[in-house]
Amino acid sequence: MNEHTFIFLGTAFTSQSSEQIAILKDHLFCVNEHGLIEKIVAPDSAEYPTLLDSYEDTQNFHRLSEGQYILPGFVDLHVHAPQWAQSGTALDRPLHDWLHTYTFPLEAKFSNLDFATNVYEDLVQTLLNNGTTTALYFATVHKEASLLLAEICAKKGQRGLVGKVVMDDPEQNPDYYRDFDTKTALKDTEEFILAVKNLGETVKQGVYPVVTPRFIPSCTDEALKGLGELAEKYDTHIQSHCSESDWEHQYVHGRYGKNDAFALHQFGLLGDKSVMAHCNFLSDQDADLFAKTGTAIGHCPLSNAYFANSVIPIKRFKSLGIDIGLGTDISAGATPSLYDNAKQAVVSSRMLEDGVNGDLPATERGVPNSRLTINEAFYLATAVGGESLSLPIGRIEENYAWDVQIIDTKVPTARLPIFDPSEDLYDIFQKIIYNVRPENIREVWVQGERVHSR
Amino acid sequence: MNEHTFIFLGTAFTSQSSEQIAILKDHLFCVNEHGLIEKIVAPDSAEYPTLLDSYEDTQNFHRLSEGQYILPGFVDLHVHAPQWAQSGTALDRPLHDWLHTYTFPLEAKFSNLDFATNVYEDLVQTLLNNGTTTALYFATVHKEASLLLAEICAKKGQRGLVGKVVMDDPEQNPDYYRDFDTKTALKDTEEFILAVKNLGETVKQGVYPVVTPRFIPSCTDEALKGLGELAEKYDTHIQSHCSESDWEHQYVHGRYGKNDAFALHQFGLLGDKSVMAHCNFLSDQDADLFAKTGTAIGHCPLSNAYFANSVIPIKRFKSLGIDIGLGTDISAGATPSLYDNAKQAVVSSRMLEDGVNGDLPATERGVPNSRLTINEAFYLATAVGGESLSLPIGRIEENYAWDVQIIDTKVPTARLPIFDPSEDLYDIFQKIIYNVRPENIREVWVQGERVHSR
Ligand SMILES: [Zn+2]
Ligand SMILES: [Zn+2]
Repeated sequence: MNEHTFIFLGTAFTSQSSEQIAILKDHLFCVNEHGLIEKIVAPDSAEYPTLLDSYEDTQNFHRLSEGQYILPGFVDLHVHAPQWAQSGTALDRPLHDWLHTYTFPLEAKFSNLDFATNVYEDLVQTLLNNGTTTALYFATVHKEASLLLAEICAKKGQRGLVGKVVMDDPEQNPDYYRDFDTKTALKDTEEFILAVKNLGETVKQGVYPVVTPRFIPSCTDEALKGLGELAEKYDTHIQSHCSESDWEHQYVHGRYGKNDAFALHQFGLLGDKSVMAHCNFLSDQDADLFAKTGTAIGHCPLSNAYFANSVIPIKRFKSLGIDIGLGTDISAGATPSLYDNAKQAVVSSRMLEDGVNGDLPATERGVPNSRLTINEAFYLATAVGGESLSLPIGRIEENYAWDVQIIDTKVPTARLPIFDPSEDLYDIFQKIIYNVRPENIREVWVQGERVHSR
Repeated sequence: MNEHTFIFLGTAFTSQSSEQIAILKDHLFCVNEHGLIEKIVAPDSAEYPTLLDSYEDTQNFHRLSEGQYILPGFVDLHVHAPQWAQSGTALDRPLHDWLHTYTFPLEAKFSNLDFATNVYEDLVQTLLNNGTTTALYFATVHKEASLLLAEICAKKGQRGLVGKVVMDDPEQNPDYYRDFDTKTALKDTEEFILAVKNLGETVKQGVYPVVTPRFIPSCTDEALKGLGELAEKYDTHIQSHCSESDWEHQYVHGRYGKNDAFALHQFGLLGDKSVMAHCNFLSDQDADLFAKTGTAIGHCPLSNAYFANSVIPIKRFKSLGIDIGLGTDISAGATPSLYDNAKQAVVSSRMLEDGVNGDLPATERGVPNSRLTINEAFYLATAVGGESLSLPIGRIEENYAWDVQIIDTKVPTARLPIFDPSEDLYDIFQKIIYNVRPENIREVWVQGERVHSR
């Protein structure tokens, strides 16, 4: 009777749609040897008692304690892994200073593999501890250290999608931190792709290479073209930054006479497996191109407050059919938590809707119909994350990976404010999203393997 | 040689000015029997070795471990204590619905003292665990439960300033939740003031009664007038909400033909010990009145994103001489942490400066010179909090209370991203403010007493 590798009994929350949360109360979640959810069984189903009977006294049965709940693991669509070492510093500096005095010198240090090991091991574990089961990473220009990051994800059980960063233009990048030349940038990228593909074949949860031009201003046309070709040749994911700030938007327009989206597209960098960070300044035409090519947006609300000069109109872009997921953008976003970013996505969207300048009349202050609910923000952090990467993750549904976080609302040192023993489950869901601390995340599973517990 | 009750040896961060952080590296902090900082001794001072010699082997000597730092305790200027029981729920609802379907029915339950005990004990402890050593509370209309909150603060060692809420207008408040009538509201308030004053005399850290009209719309003129008189008679603190939202701003204008600030002033409710929550829509004239009367603002950036329809122009109001501190506004702000609010104060100020609507040209989008630095946000959460309440708290300086939080950056389950053994101390300060979790707050002291440790 051991058809399933294991079964969980408990209450889970997962997105049913962009607006609605499904509450699976006291269900059985049956996981197979591949780490996929094979079957979800409701308490009123005929097979429920049979399954309970055959599993509940076995090692393969996990019954959640009172006050514990299952959420899908989070999908972080934008992390600069090396910048974890400076998370929280220098955010009051202007962008140029932030990049050239802090960020590039820090990233340059990742030529040292010992330093890289320290930072990357800590980051991957910290993201797991915060409930992030899949992450899309920018590493650095260094091929070896980038591969090391993929290896650490493999070892720690996180589903990592990792890019060796390309920044080859000698005019735009500092001498101490850039690709040696365009040819080397492309050669290193190809070798990196092959190495990570090899590694990925041995890893249950998968690790994936990602073609990663830093952003248009740091790359030559030749590099952008070559990267588009490599992505096609190896069918890889692609990531970059797109239309982030006033400055960047105008730079690209000056260089190509077109917006980022069309420039990226001409180099073959938009597609179903592409995720572009930020995208605050997409025009409606750009947005249509994103929708048509299947390109997703990685929305990073905390980072945007510092460096994007605006709030992205998510509701408008969603209505045009674009997948929009969430990212931390460590370290322009100074938190490893997608909880923090989901909450900020709601807050920022309210500020877009209501406006910020109280000296203006209410009718001229904001952009009507911009607000996101907490359900929608949760949907971005989970289900859309999976869709953006074209992977079966981010939902608690049959044929999705068992990528989950087990939340304990009753941890003595971090009890959630639940005082009514029969509190409504949807209220509990909201309290979880708003109040959870890493202490409450007791277990994290990726592809059917427990990768964190406390 | 036991002149001082105890001495701490360690590195502390405290505001030197609005913009600058003082870093007191390896100093000795000498605290007296009243819980006040009597002396701060630098390592190069002549008495340093003498003091070290006489204390370091005694019970009264506390040496911080490597990776630990001292910060002033936070001062939370705006907490609706009963709303802790709903923190995180219903924030997607419109204000009227939020109040009448959720908040008022919840507050009405505090006629039950058992329920009140559960919620208030948990809240006060949670705020302490988050580093909040002083809190300015709205309780409910119930005299007994409000007194209970003051007693719990007294018992747990928090410096609580507590208001029994007045909302007496039968036209504006639900029948199931308001003062019985104006006379009862004033009588209950006076009895409450006397009871808390009595209690306060027995409490080392102090607890204080606060005259608390909920906001102008919920009170009759007679109640507002009577409350102003009680505040004067007993020299109490005063708190209310002021010019929060478009609706409220216009309501008061309709009733009195003047703004909130002038209406509150005519009832004697502005003064050196007054703190008004929000104040997003103060005119320059209102702001001058605040400055002239010494009235402080309790800025609640997370709450404002939901219910204030704008971002308060802190820089402008500061330049007019107003004290502006920080508040959580539990539960319109769904976090017990002033770390979360300090970060949001920076984020919101950046969004005010840059604007939110990317469809507008950059020059028309925001309000120039609005941004706060993290140093300024920290200053609001600590030093200005103390000044707003006219109490010697919020700074690590001689003659201030020993109200501190001991932060451990090396807790194994919540290590901060510090990888350089000789990391710059100001960078560590910024990493603390951005990355601390309650797990990192190892000890909290109020008025020389340890009130939390883990
Ligand atoms: Zn980025
Ligand atoms: Zn309030």
